[in-house]
Amino acid sequence: MALIVQKYGGTSVGSTDKIKAVARRVIECQKQGNQMVVVLSAMAGETDRLTAMANDIQKIPNLREMDMLLSTGEQVTIALFAMAVKEAGSDAISLLGDQVRIRTDRMHTRARIRDIDTTLLKKHLDAGRIVTVAGFQGVDDDGDITTLGRGGSDTTAVALAAALGADACEIFTDVEGVYTTDPNICSQARKIDHISYDEMLELASLGAKVLDIRSVGLAKRYNVPVHVRSTFSDNEGTWVVEEDRIMESMLVSGITYNRNEARITIKKVPDQPGIAAKIFLPISDAGILVDMIIQNTRDSHLTDMTFTVMRNDYARAMEIVKKVAEEIGAESVTGDESIVKVSIVGVGMRNHSGIASTMFQILAKEGINMMMVSTSEIKVSCIISEKYTELAVRALHDAFALDKDNVPLEEE
Amino acid sequence: MALIVQKYGGTSVGSTDKIKAVARRVIECQKQGNQMVVVLSAMAGETDRLTAMANDIQKIPNLREMDMLLSTGEQVTIALFAMAVKEAGSDAISLLGDQVRIRTDRMHTRARIRDIDTTLLKKHLDAGRIVTVAGFQGVDDDGDITTLGRGGSDTTAVALAAALGADACEIFTDVEGVYTTDPNICSQARKIDHISYDEMLELASLGAKVLDIRSVGLAKRYNVPVHVRSTFSDNEGTWVVEEDRIMESMLVSGITYNRNEARITIKKVPDQPGIAAKIFLPISDAGILVDMIIQNTRDSHLTDMTFTVMRNDYARAMEIVKKVAEEIGAESVTGDESIVKVSIVGVGMRNHSGIASTMFQILAKEGINMMMVSTSEIKVSCIISEKYTELAVRALHDAFALDKDNVPLEEE
Repeated sequence: MALIVQKYGGTSVGSTDKIKAVARRVIECQKQGNQMVVVLSAMAGETDRLTAMANDIQKIPNLREMDMLLSTGEQVTIALFAMAVKEAGSDAISLLGDQVRIRTDRMHTRARIRDIDTTLLKKHLDAGRIVTVAGFQGVDDDGDITTLGRGGSDTTAVALAAALGADACEIFTDVEGVYTTDPNICSQARKIDHISYDEMLELASLGAKVLDIRSVGLAKRYNVPVHVRSTFSDNEGTWVVEEDRIMESMLVSGITYNRNEARITIKKVPDQPGIAAKIFLPISDAGILVDMIIQNTRDSHLTDMTFTVMRNDYARAMEIVKKVAEEIGAESVTGDESIVKVSIVGVGMRNHSGIASTMFQILAKEGINMMMVSTSEIKVSCIISEKYTELAVRALHDAFALDKDNVPLEEE
Repeated sequence: MALIVQKYGGTSVGSTDKIKAVARRVIECQKQGNQMVVVLSAMAGETDRLTAMANDIQKIPNLREMDMLLSTGEQVTIALFAMAVKEAGSDAISLLGDQVRIRTDRMHTRARIRDIDTTLLKKHLDAGRIVTVAGFQGVDDDGDITTLGRGGSDTTAVALAAALGADACEIFTDVEGVYTTDPNICSQARKIDHISYDEMLELASLGAKVLDIRSVGLAKRYNVPVHVRSTFSDNEGTWVVEEDRIMESMLVSGITYNRNEARITIKKVPDQPGIAAKIFLPISDAGILVDMIIQNTRDSHLTDMTFTVMRNDYARAMEIVKKVAEEIGAESVTGDESIVKVSIVGVGMRNHSGIASTMFQILAKEGINMMMVSTSEIKVSCIISEKYTELAVRALHDAFALDKDNVPLEEE
């Protein structure tokens, strides 16, 4: 008898009819001899409806009260789901984060799970019940309701699977799985059957649409096999698993892009120890995340510093940087919001050199100029002009033969 | 410094603007030097919306899950209210029934409060916070959410006032208070300034529109002064208090009517010991409440048995009674759904005889035939034909001079 944790997102439970359909699916899985834990999100639109009311009342809604408010969305869904299971002839019980005792820290609206008590869960599972747990929520040491942030239901599901030692954690969503790249801009994109945790982490921008990135880190840490699949079909989706369990690794597994970046360059910075800290400290103090940082030495005493920030932090970052640039005696500050970060990701890179240079060649062949480059063990990222996004993704997808199924490393 | 518990119903918090208005009102009351506990209902329409979804999913919704579902309504309101108070510059915190520890029995959807822990409430009150508590809900010994049934927020408010030893419990609603009779059918109806608990209990049908009858019993038991008043004006409403605190009692305080009754008569029942039990046991076994019961001896061995039930139980009750009548050898069963129960209520009756006969005279003068009569210490009820409802209420209101303010007993 296997123990399976399933998670259904907001669109999967967006109406009473859809909740009934999910109940039938879960019961079927139970009848195949599995113990079932079902994590549900709020019905589609509900979180937005509640947030709109909060914003109408308080300019910057109080975070504790926001959690009190938003956590009702999942509570509604699990109650309705438990009713649907019972109506369909099986037994079910709904449990809140507080009732399970999903203990978190006190960081309202972005709490982190500390531990999960599985006593009550196991009791109900052993009694043959389908246990449905409110996603996205926990309880802190004061007994206050906390929420885990957007995508938190994925984290709830993986954390429950880890705590229960489940055989699999299935994340149901409205797409068929994780694709080699965005099918909207590359018709050759192919569903990936198996992918490693590390690749999934690097494919954030592809993965974020189907699986919250934080839950992937958790799955990796506790080695929980995650199956991302569609609520609306019976097809196998994408399994996110340990690298060792993937028989034939691709050299490149996926191509991802991120339009949500902006570039800032400070020219002719006096090159002295501590200068980078002087620039980046006030930026991080303002809560702005810096992604790529590149430093080019111009001549012996001057350097150019280029980095990227999220596009909606661009204006604030520019303001801060201009002030700092003046203080440190840099020549000028320039910026560009029309950029995109294109990345190729694959665990196969670990053992193969030359992947980065292949990427550069492909881009050069298409006449695409690279502004910045950064590499990690399993990823190469290039900043290019935003207008080349589709062209670059398609050319790379084609060149690395991602449309072909499971090309083994040996054939390369 | 007084401690005041206020309760606002669903129409009072039916929109974000109304919630802001309630917040301003509560803050003003706090600024006058009071500690404030605020019990809120779900936003108007929310409970119906949730119930409709439940009914769409499960024919007879599971009661535990129903409580899980419905309790979200109040949770949303208290979170939004706490935000509104903070936005208006005062401090507030919202607490669920579970967090306060409003302990109830396990009777889902109609739980009864066992006890309330005031530790957390007092801590927040002493810190100067406005404490808002979700009405209608509690928690049982298993940690499951329970609800107190419709009107349960009134009970929450009175129970909190009792547990905290509050100076007053103010119930805010959309009317100005309790009236001598229904203003819709008697334009002379007058708002009552002070009324005793016992009278309020007997005036159920008048009172139920503004104050849940169960909460009146609780208020009486713990001697909590209850002030029923309008959310939408600053006028004093009706104080429901101990009889001793009302300086000048009226002979008759109010006139109430109840159209929700139906009459059943069993003719020529063999008059033997135990016959009443034979008739009424199967009725109560079916969960049907019987209100008035009258037995007329017809001759030495036969009796006529007449009683009333709620109108929506009438068909079921008739079915049961016909079967029983056959078994016990009664002659026939007749029934009437077009009846109304008109009652006069007043603590003054305790010391004054002749009130009932005055009532009979007034009705006779109007040509209204009485089908049944029952009396208690402070109430006289008559069953009459429904078509005479307005005529009877107006004639009695006029005859007992209820349009005149505080006629003292001595002047009668």
